[in-house]
Amino acid sequence: MNPILCLSLLLLASGTFAYIQEGPSSLSVYALRLGPGEEIVTSLFKFVQEKKLRAPFVITCVGSVTKATLRLANSDAQNTNEIIHLKERFEIVSLVGTLNEDAHLHISLSDKDGKTIGGHAMGNLEVFTTAEIVIGELSDLQFTREMDERTGFPELVIRPRSENTTSA
Amino acid sequence: MNPILCLSLLLLASGTFAYIQEGPSSLSVYALRLGPGEEIVTSLFKFVQEKKLRAPFVITCVGSVTKATLRLANSDAQNTNEIIHLKERFEIVSLVGTLNEDAHLHISLSDKDGKTIGGHAMGNLEVFTTAEIVIGELSDLQFTREMDERTGFPELVIRPRSENTTSA
Amino acid sequence: MNPILCLSLLLLASGTFAYIQEGPSSLSVYALRLGPGEEIVTSLFKFVQEKKLRAPFVITCVGSVTKATLRLANSDAQNTNEIIHLKERFEIVSLVGTLNEDAHLHISLSDKDGKTIGGHAMGNLEVFTTAEIVIGELSDLQFTREMDERTGFPELVIRPRSENTTSA
Repeated sequence: MNPILCLSLLLLASGTFAYIQEGPSSLSVYALRLGPGEEIVTSLFKFVQEKKLRAPFVITCVGSVTKATLRLANSDAQNTNEIIHLKERFEIVSLVGTLNEDAHLHISLSDKDGKTIGGHAMGNLEVFTTAEIVIGELSDLQFTREMDERTGFPELVIRPRSENTTSA
Repeated sequence: MNPILCLSLLLLASGTFAYIQEGPSSLSVYALRLGPGEEIVTSLFKFVQEKKLRAPFVITCVGSVTKATLRLANSDAQNTNEIIHLKERFEIVSLVGTLNEDAHLHISLSDKDGKTIGGHAMGNLEVFTTAEIVIGELSDLQFTREMDERTGFPELVIRPRSENTTSA
Repeated sequence: MNPILCLSLLLLASGTFAYIQEGPSSLSVYALRLGPGEEIVTSLFKFVQEKKLRAPFVITCVGSVTKATLRLANSDAQNTNEIIHLKERFEIVSLVGTLNEDAHLHISLSDKDGKTIGGHAMGNLEVFTTAEIVIGELSDLQFTREMDERTGFPELVIRPRSENTTSA
């Protein structure tokens, strides 16, 4: 049996944890500044690959974009999520998520009236003037994505680095 | 006189600080992944208790929920804040706050049209597909909540761990 | 030639990085609690000056305000961004950004109906009951702002501390 699955079943049986958790880990931190025309998701992806980060996530992000492609929340079981392509100047008011091979990023953007729009960041986040981003990397853990039968998606799996598992 | 109160008065008198602050502290970090049907506030509360965290806070959270109970901003002095029970699929676009015995969490959620709604997270945040959460724990500090006469609520008090104060 | 410019050109030429990045750095963390009537931007600015922080940023912030002055997203090339003065009770649902001499902070606020409004935090963020803020400081880096001809604004520059550069 897969040791993570085994652990999960044990924890479920013990009634204390249903979720998967790892830590404590120490943290290394990186800071980036993107300029006009750079795309945020691609840049973060490149950065993670170049630095060979294994458990990276966004700590904070401030900036502005001229475009965004967002996948919106699911409406119901029958309908797939709508994807919208925005072409407008926005302030980034939040960027959250994890950054390993399949980044899982959600964003909220405010427009010229202060109105906010949010969803899953698919890409196309072209910087207007700047994007200042602080990235954390958990030194003792590694993130992978593995198929979760319950959701039909590859979902985050968190492991100690001491376990001999390959990460992209 | 309580040493924290004494310090606060001194700082007020010196004209430099009115707020309470502590640090620098080093940081330990934990990562969690919640699956379908798990409730976020309860899970975080359990996690903090199990790990005996004393100064924990949310660094980032990405995921989706099918429900949420939010306490909205106060409208005016006469009216208490409205509490709303949402039952709809949302993307989590921000989760902020501290996590000791009385968690103080605010959240913003985006719906199937990208529209965002936010407030104080009361609970009932049932995960739709996933919730990936990174938690920080300040190794040198401890959070408690103590009644603040100015607000009528138990508010965050931050102390060095070396002070011999109990924490839940 | 400026070494940072030189490095940027080299990186551009190599096709790997267009953005500026530095790290890894270790992190020191501070926690603050502001009380009723305190202003968030001014308080953070004072805090950074008092502690002589050189690469500070917001990790999380939870709380409520009675006022806010926000600069909204740019509408188009001809128009300058609109600045709005809000006077209403809001929950803080996100606060993101960097905090050196010219703080770059974006915020989103939710109102009595849960509706959120966001933009660049200009100040006037007067605390209603509380604001709990966790600040990170990159021990090995320093943030400055330098004019970027592409945007016409002083933009974030990130350098290792070993480089002999003054910071405010």
